[in-house]
Amino acid sequence: MNVNEALEKLEQIELKIYANRHAMSLINYDAYTRAPKGSGDARGKTLSVLAEEGYKLMVNDALREVLGVLLENRDSLSEVDRRRAEVLFEDLEKMQRIPMEEVIAFQELTNKAQDVWHDAKVNNDYASFAPYIDKIVASLKRQSKYIDSDRDAYDVQLGEYEKGMDTKKLDAIFGEMKAGLRPLIEKVSSLPIRDDFLRRKCDIAKQRELSDRLMSLMGIDRNHCTIDETEHPFTDNFSKYDVRITTHYYDDAVASSLYSVVHEGGHALYELHTADELQYTCLASGTSMGVHESQSRFYENIIGRSRAFVSRLYPMLRELFPNEYSDVSEDELYRALNKAEPSLIRTEADELTYTMHIIIRYEIEKMLFSGEVTSANLPETWNRLYKEYLGIDVPDDKRGVLQDSHWSGGAMGYFPSYALGSAYGAQMLAAMQKDIDVFGSIKSGDFSKVNGWLENKIHRYGRMLDPTEVVPKACGSEFSPKYYIEYLSEKLKDVYGI
Amino acid sequence: MNVNEALEKLEQIELKIYANRHAMSLINYDAYTRAPKGSGDARGKTLSVLAEEGYKLMVNDALREVLGVLLENRDSLSEVDRRRAEVLFEDLEKMQRIPMEEVIAFQELTNKAQDVWHDAKVNNDYASFAPYIDKIVASLKRQSKYIDSDRDAYDVQLGEYEKGMDTKKLDAIFGEMKAGLRPLIEKVSSLPIRDDFLRRKCDIAKQRELSDRLMSLMGIDRNHCTIDETEHPFTDNFSKYDVRITTHYYDDAVASSLYSVVHEGGHALYELHTADELQYTCLASGTSMGVHESQSRFYENIIGRSRAFVSRLYPMLRELFPNEYSDVSEDELYRALNKAEPSLIRTEADELTYTMHIIIRYEIEKMLFSGEVTSANLPETWNRLYKEYLGIDVPDDKRGVLQDSHWSGGAMGYFPSYALGSAYGAQMLAAMQKDIDVFGSIKSGDFSKVNGWLENKIHRYGRMLDPTEVVPKACGSEFSPKYYIEYLSEKLKDVYGI
Repeated sequence: MNVNEALEKLEQIELKIYANRHAMSLINYDAYTRAPKGSGDARGKTLSVLAEEGYKLMVNDALREVLGVLLENRDSLSEVDRRRAEVLFEDLEKMQRIPMEEVIAFQELTNKAQDVWHDAKVNNDYASFAPYIDKIVASLKRQSKYIDSDRDAYDVQLGEYEKGMDTKKLDAIFGEMKAGLRPLIEKVSSLPIRDDFLRRKCDIAKQRELSDRLMSLMGIDRNHCTIDETEHPFTDNFSKYDVRITTHYYDDAVASSLYSVVHEGGHALYELHTADELQYTCLASGTSMGVHESQSRFYENIIGRSRAFVSRLYPMLRELFPNEYSDVSEDELYRALNKAEPSLIRTEADELTYTMHIIIRYEIEKMLFSGEVTSANLPETWNRLYKEYLGIDVPDDKRGVLQDSHWSGGAMGYFPSYALGSAYGAQMLAAMQKDIDVFGSIKSGDFSKVNGWLENKIHRYGRMLDPTEVVPKACGSEFSPKYYIEYLSEKLKDVYGI
Repeated sequence: MNVNEALEKLEQIELKIYANRHAMSLINYDAYTRAPKGSGDARGKTLSVLAEEGYKLMVNDALREVLGVLLENRDSLSEVDRRRAEVLFEDLEKMQRIPMEEVIAFQELTNKAQDVWHDAKVNNDYASFAPYIDKIVASLKRQSKYIDSDRDAYDVQLGEYEKGMDTKKLDAIFGEMKAGLRPLIEKVSSLPIRDDFLRRKCDIAKQRELSDRLMSLMGIDRNHCTIDETEHPFTDNFSKYDVRITTHYYDDAVASSLYSVVHEGGHALYELHTADELQYTCLASGTSMGVHESQSRFYENIIGRSRAFVSRLYPMLRELFPNEYSDVSEDELYRALNKAEPSLIRTEADELTYTMHIIIRYEIEKMLFSGEVTSANLPETWNRLYKEYLGIDVPDDKRGVLQDSHWSGGAMGYFPSYALGSAYGAQMLAAMQKDIDVFGSIKSGDFSKVNGWLENKIHRYGRMLDPTEVVPKACGSEFSPKYYIEYLSEKLKDVYGI
């Protein structure tokens, strides 16, 4: 087989891998959005078959041979093809270490666990979900061991979401963030900010219209991106040509949904702006969850909660909800949207306390993997840490340990991505401001400068660069959480006038 | 390989076939319901890969060997397993005659054609869709030739939707129907019936509530069946555990949507009531499109437009639309819903003239296959036949040749199923009335007797019986269109008092 033949075969194989993932992703997406409640078992059968096919598409001698030819001739390949071969080989090597039975069993387990979690959350019934926690931890520990038996099992999982990350680094990063943020939390928590109007009832049809306007303002191409409604907002992408975001509307919490739209819109922009030439290859999508969350949280908080953005948002709210916002000034809206206050729900948390929600989950995941915490003492551990880190009492598991979908979906080691993403985003802002007038352009309603900068420095690369490469390259400096702490200090000075 | 080993392998293979079809069906369903407009090319790539896999899952030596073992030992098999082996072998034999390239090319062609048709209909732009008509006819003629070169190409396609059906039989059946129905159409067309209130604006949120109530009245299990909104209503089923119906709401045509719900609900009940033991096998779904349409049209017209059903519907409309229906009596509603009048749109047509819409399409399909009609003279042929058979002028292609989705989806030979279904349904009613008090139970709001009769006589069999077996078996008599003509004559007497 010569290089051209190998490239041709690679294209065929990657197209099959793409099709398999498209089908599986859509079936999962459908499960969250449209599928009838009683369809779980039938869907589970399909997903098991497709998971097995997906495994076989990766782990086989034909692909190994193709990649062998390409890697032997790597110097003659284009930059993209070289990277494709390297990344796919790495994925293959990792996947083949996990026995197929484990992969399929995990697929079935998490498919079931998600259904159970969904009901458990609605019914505040932790007991029904508890057994799945232990099973998921046990499977992930086995998977980690298969992937790299020399490394700590939780470190392996962290690396799955953020290549190059481990507990040693995260302990240091989170230590610095805790030290920087806790005094701020203490300082501002007792200061009053008026935000009663954020709980006023707002018509949901109008909220849907607001979502459309925000997506339009953000420059999201609706020809390739839809919005749907789910219990828990998320973004899915089958290719850059087919991206889906979701949100959840509450009639008495308009900010909740609107910031979900801006957050998921940030994820969507990343996918929509990956390079065309990378589509249908292993390089097509965002490089890591941390970098992905840097985009979503950048748009949600750094842009979305800026005075510039609020100056665009304010007239929309006044127009769509004239009665509800008649007695609110733009400055009051800005301050309310940035009010920092310990709270129960991660996705509703303000920028300042959000990181504490993540650190709590990170500490718990470490303990789940060490065995110090199991399903039996998980809720009490959760509640204890919320008291310790945020000073609040958790009234029930629904608003406690059951609030997030990640664990039921089999994702442990994902949560730190959010905090990393926040920190990456602040560092990107510092770099971006050297090149363009970030908030001036947002204030004028022009997102193209910010979108363009991110597309050029981050989005277009897809998986061409690792997170440890793309962040420093974009920012022109090594990663450090100090930018985030500085950014937040400045922000809170402005919000609280301290 | 012994029989038990063969059965075990068969189960594995059929599970893969099920998974492949589930994935493809959902991707198509998603295309109609949720997918972003610009996702067609990316979806096409996935569907091509999956179509190729689907073909390979059927046409391969392993399955052939398994079926060989089972068919050699057919006497030792259970009734279900024997039928599974026979039906799957027949499917395989047919499929392997069509070269895979043709299957995939057709998949790509119709995927594209559906997107183009959708826009063409919205924009009343026949020219953009025209080339696809010729390509689809050409491919279907080639496919027919591959399947059976001795038979007429259109007959082969008819047999795909209704095993045992051909133009000779249909010419006779439609001849009898034309002869019986045309005098009726002439007789009642000029008689006035008040129906102005059916065009009154009705709030769409309330119409959605009406859909929920109707599905509940019909005894449709919402745990396994959802309702969605699409341009053109349809039913999809991935298994009996996951059925989807769709409708289209118009604010000035409440009857349009509500009868779509009842029609698609009939399809749904058929799938929901197939036997559990048939699931994930080739026997799982309805036996033919004709029998499927017999169920949908039975519920839509024979039940849905009966005095008994209208006595349930009337109070719902009065409650949901108090202003719009304040001056309407139950009798006026019944007569308006049964008003017979030549019209442009098949899906909106009354029971009496509906068959003419079908006969027009049947005549055109025959001419498309004979070459007498091509894309160049298709609209004029359509318009000429509407004038001839229904006496009406077609104002534009949007309400003419572009109104239906079938041809763009590659289905030619499907339309006769609707007329056959109507006729099957009337014959089933005659048999059912010997066993149960059909309209008495509907009037009391109890659908369980009718549903139970159909489940027992039709639904549960899935593909265990051919259409030529299940219809006479259920009805206790050979199929004849006379029941339909009699039923309609009686009905119109009641409606028009003639």
